[in-house]
Order: sequence, then C-alpha cells, then structure tokens
Amino acid sequence: MNPRLQCLRNKLKAQNIEGMIISNPVNIKYLIGIEAEGILLLTRKENIYITDSRYIEMVQSTLTITDEIIVNDVKNITGEDYQNFFCFCENVGFEEDYVTYSKYKEYMHKYRINNLMETEQIIEKQRTIKDKEEIDNVRKACEITDKCFKYLLDFIKIGMTEKEIAYEIQRYFIANGASGLAFDSIVASGVNSSMPHAVPTDKIIENGDIITLDFGCKYNGYCSDMTRTIFVGYVKEEIKEIYNLVLKNQKQTLEEMYDGANTKILFKMVENDFKIHKHELPHALGHGVGLDVHEEPSIGLRKENILREHMIVTDEPGIYIPGKFGVRIEDTVLITKSGCEPLTKSYKGYIII
Amino acid sequence: MNPRLQCLRNKLKAQNIEGMIISNPVNIKYLIGIEAEGILLLTRKENIYITDSRYIEMVQSTLTITDEIIVNDVKNITGEDYQNFFCFCENVGFEEDYVTYSKYKEYMHKYRINNLMETEQIIEKQRTIKDKEEIDNVRKACEITDKCFKYLLDFIKIGMTEKEIAYEIQRYFIANGASGLAFDSIVASGVNSSMPHAVPTDKIIENGDIITLDFGCKYNGYCSDMTRTIFVGYVKEEIKEIYNLVLKNQKQTLEEMYDGANTKILFKMVENDFKIHKHELPHALGHGVGLDVHEEPSIGLRKENILREHMIVTDEPGIYIPGKFGVRIEDTVLITKSGCEPLTKSYKGYIII
Repeated sequence: MNPRLQCLRNKLKAQNIEGMIISNPVNIKYLIGIEAEGILLLTRKENIYITDSRYIEMVQSTLTITDEIIVNDVKNITGEDYQNFFCFCENVGFEEDYVTYSKYKEYMHKYRINNLMETEQIIEKQRTIKDKEEIDNVRKACEITDKCFKYLLDFIKIGMTEKEIAYEIQRYFIANGASGLAFDSIVASGVNSSMPHAVPTDKIIENGDIITLDFGCKYNGYCSDMTRTIFVGYVKEEIKEIYNLVLKNQKQTLEEMYDGANTKILFKMVENDFKIHKHELPHALGHGVGLDVHEEPSIGLRKENILREHMIVTDEPGIYIPGKFGVRIEDTVLITKSGCEPLTKSYKGYIII
Repeated sequence: MNPRLQCLRNKLKAQNIEGMIISNPVNIKYLIGIEAEGILLLTRKENIYITDSRYIEMVQSTLTITDEIIVNDVKNITGEDYQNFFCFCENVGFEEDYVTYSKYKEYMHKYRINNLMETEQIIEKQRTIKDKEEIDNVRKACEITDKCFKYLLDFIKIGMTEKEIAYEIQRYFIANGASGLAFDSIVASGVNSSMPHAVPTDKIIENGDIITLDFGCKYNGYCSDMTRTIFVGYVKEEIKEIYNLVLKNQKQTLEEMYDGANTKILFKMVENDFKIHKHELPHALGHGVGLDVHEEPSIGLRKENILREHMIVTDEPGIYIPGKFGVRIEDTVLITKSGCEPLTKSYKGYIII
C-alpha cells in the first residue's frame, strides 16, 4: 500500500478508529498525490476514492496498483453503497477543522455512522515530518525564491510601484519553473513596512526607502517562504539598531532549531530579547511549510510543539514601529538531527540597491 | 441602521431568531463593507464587530455612525463578555455551510448559547438580489472584461502558449482598473477545449485551433464571468453544427430569463435540445455572480430557483466532444422586470483570428 496511507492507517488503528472520511483536498493530495474534486474513504479493508467523470481518467492514470486505491465514479455509487462503506466500523474519523457543520450532518446521515469522531489533525500532524521527495520539492521552491531575490535586486528601481514589483515576482516565478505563488507577495516600502501584513500599493519606491519583500513560490505543490528587508540608496540611522536586533535573533533562533527543540521556548527567547530592547514580537516566530504555506507546527505562544528531524519551518522575527517602518527577516528551514539547514540562502546583511 | 443589516434583522425576526454569529468574510463584506479578519455579532439590541489591532483603525475609519455598529478589539473582550452577548437570546443563528464542526463546538461553549440554529443560507439568499451599487460594480467588471476580450483578439498569435495568454489576461485586468481575477482564467486550445474545466498549459496555439476563453475580473470586490470560443485561421466544418447549437441555446435562454422564470425549466430546455441532437449538457447552465463568482442561485437540475428582478446570473451552455473539442458561450446577465440585460456584450458569432 501507498506508504503515507499505511502510516495513517497505523495511527488510526492505535486510536481505535476503524475508518476515516477524508475531504480536505490538501490532505488528499498529500496522501494519494491526486488533485481533483473528490473524497477519500478509508474503510475497514479498502481505500476508496470517489470522484466524478471530469477527473476519473486522470486519477486512474496517476494511481498505480501498489497504491491499493479503488477509484469510483460518484454517479455509480448508490445510497445503499454509502451506507455499506462503514457498516462494520464502530468509530469513523473525520476532519473536524475542515468539514463544515452542514457536511458533518450530511456525513452522519449518508454513511449511517455510529460514532463520527474528531481526529485532532491526525493527517496535518503526519504532514509535519517530510519525506525525501517533499524535502526536495521545498528545496527546489526555495532555490527559485533565492534566484528571484537576486533578480529583484537588479530589477527594483526608484519610481516603480510596489504593485509592479509584486507583479514581477509572480512573472519571474512562472517563467522560472515554479507553478505559481505560494501566497500573495508582500512588497511594503517606506512607512508601509510598519504593517506586518501589508498589501502592495501604488506607492512609488523612493530614495531612502526601506522595502520588506515577503514572498515564495510553489514547486510540485510545495511552498517556499522568505522575507528580506532591503534599502534604497542608503540606510537610515534609526533603522540600524532594529535591523541588527532582528537579524541577531533570526540567527540565534537558527542556532536553537534542532530535533527536540521546544517551540514555545524558541518564541520566548526572541520575545524576551525584544522586550529588553523595548520592542515587541507581534506575530508567531514561525510556522510549518509544505503543501500549505502555513501549516503545523506553529512556533508561537499558543501551543507547545517539539521540533523533529525533517520538519520544515520558518524563522521570521520582526519588529514594527507604527507610522515609521518595520524589519522582518525570514528563512525556510529544514530541521535535522543535530541542528537545522536554512533552505533559503539569500544574504541577510544590509543590502542597498 | 445600515440597510443590508436591517434587512437581515427583519428576516431573522420573521424566523424567530434573536441573534446571529456571522463569520464568513464574504457575508461580512456584503453586510458592512469591511474586509478584515473578524466576526460580526447581531445581538438582541446591538451590532458588534470584533477584530484585532491590525484592522481596528481601518475598520473605524470605514464605518459611519449611521451604520450602528460597535467595533471592539478582540484583546479587550473577556470570556464573560462572550457569555453575555447572547444571554437574552433563545435562538441564535450561524452559517452552517461556512462554519467548521470545530468552530461550531467552540461557539457553543464560548457564547453559551441555548439553541445555535442553522440559518439555511439566509445571507446568501439576500445577496442574490443586487442593489444599485452592486449592479454598477458588476457592470463595470463586465465592461473591463469586454475590453479585455477585444484586446485579446489582437494579442493572441500562433506560437503563443495558453499560459502566456492566461497571464496576459491577468496583466490586462490589473493595468485597466480591475483589482484582479474573479477566478483562474481558462484558456483551452485545440483538444484541450474538450474539458469544461481545463487549466492553461504550455500547448502552443496553432492554425486551425479552437480556443475557449473563460475569464472575468473583480471590480470593488464584484465579479464578472464571460466565455467566448474563437478560431485560429479557419473554422473546422465538424465544429460548426455544435457551435451553432450552443449559440442558439445561449440566445434562447436569454429570451427566457425574466423575473419569475424557473431555473430548472431553463436548464431542461437546453438539455432537451442538446439531447435531440445527441449531445449532453454536463454542467449547470448558470450560476449567480456577485462578491463570489459562483453564488446563489444555481441554474441546474439539483434545485428549483425562481429568477427575480436584480439577480445577476450567468448563461453558459456548453458541449464537449472528448478527445476532439468543446464549445461554450457565456454571458453575465442582469435579470429585469420584463426580461434580462446581458452585462457582457462581446460578439458571439464566429470570430476568426
């Protein structure tokens, strides 16, 4: 059987869950490599993927016999079939963070399930540990992102708008092997950089501007995520202290990222150092990266997670001075047994264009 | 009070629902014009919008006193506050088609609600009838789309790829007043046109190709949606019969769209005519268009809806010959008292480039 599916089945079995209804398309892509509209059912004995006529041909040509997945056209499934899928299962899992309340009720009736159980992100947790193929894909997305950054340093000129630069990032990615953006790029110049979630505007790049570039692409479905803060013409004195503080903490965090590291402690270390210098860290220090650009684990205060070998996460401290400017520096990072490897490798010292 | 909110309150009252938790961002944008992360609570006496520090300033500068909406920063709301919001409400509504099962459970506990009630798309139904401002926005999005089509007829050349054309559509929209795409454009040439949901590929446009262009933009948040099927060099004989059949039905449907028309009958009429000619209509004949590019009402077999004055819907019959080609022709259409007005006005006869 497909090894990711086998791994999930083992985890379900350990929790006494005999079947599962999987409907989140990202989880389905992760488990069986299929991007279509459909639903994946793990019944007691079988793995069943139900889709419609638009996708049947593509799905059947993608899956192999070793996947052990039965493909069905939704139009051939009767009401009775639905009721039989889980008829010997006491507990059937579902994705309570994805499935709407309406769908939950629909599942209850359609499948006649005794106990439709919450699975507490069982698949999302499995997705945190990347296999070789996944790491290679994120690595490639990060390489394209580094090249794009290098390209942008030549491309960006005084007089361009933030929107033009954001647009060029997308064009570059598509022209250079990525399938598209991992998320809407942030290009925030001058005072706009003081907002962590700035949207590119018609503001023109001026001499003396600080520019926050937060961007990433997708490669085979896998994301990259990098932020660099650069300068136009010269670096204003008032920014230097903050830039240095952010960079120091970004690098120190890399030193502390290894198999076994506690994410809450990572966050606290940066937060404390910022506080000592009378600043705040107003967002998480990082997040998992994979098929989703924001996935488990989160590196913040809300939940304590332990970093594990082959997790991929970001390291992105930032300081924002309202009405003035902001600095954020971010890498996508692979956790290894003894430490970590930044997959985005662009220069992090002062860059003046 | 803001008239859209007042209208919703009247509808809720008629159903004996005394409060509502609104979390779908599109519904919030519709009701109070705010695009942020937050939640809108209609309590017995008050309208309360809860957001966070990133958005507070923007929200307060957008809303006016006549909106009668109290804005709160989430960090100032205590657990007790949440329990008090609905303390005199017996029945409180929520959006069961948007809220996940996890969130549903969280609401139950957080707000201590006696009866958290499904509202059966009460806001989505209200959204089907557009007011003047909404119609103007869709009209403008359709105008930009028509202009883009005219531009494309000059732009598209033999040797370009489908992806390049799709990319140019996006560039044109952003450069010409739209805020972006309403949906990922479909540019499907030659045999690719036989798939209703084709994704642009690296296939090169060749002499003799048929090209399906299905695209639309956003203006002030409102969408347009248009499809035209055009020809490169000449029209293959085998296509003509099908093109004429699709176009005849697209035009006949426009004749039958008016206040009071039954959507199931509209669908059946086209389906029957296709069947007589040994073809199928494998998707809905149309759908509502507004803040979402696909919204209520659907014009298909699954549900019977009645068209009403000031609804905006699409009319998009299509025939697809597997492994050969496909033809779809689509307009965005405003329903009027006596008939309808197509808001996309591009030529629908044979266009050869």
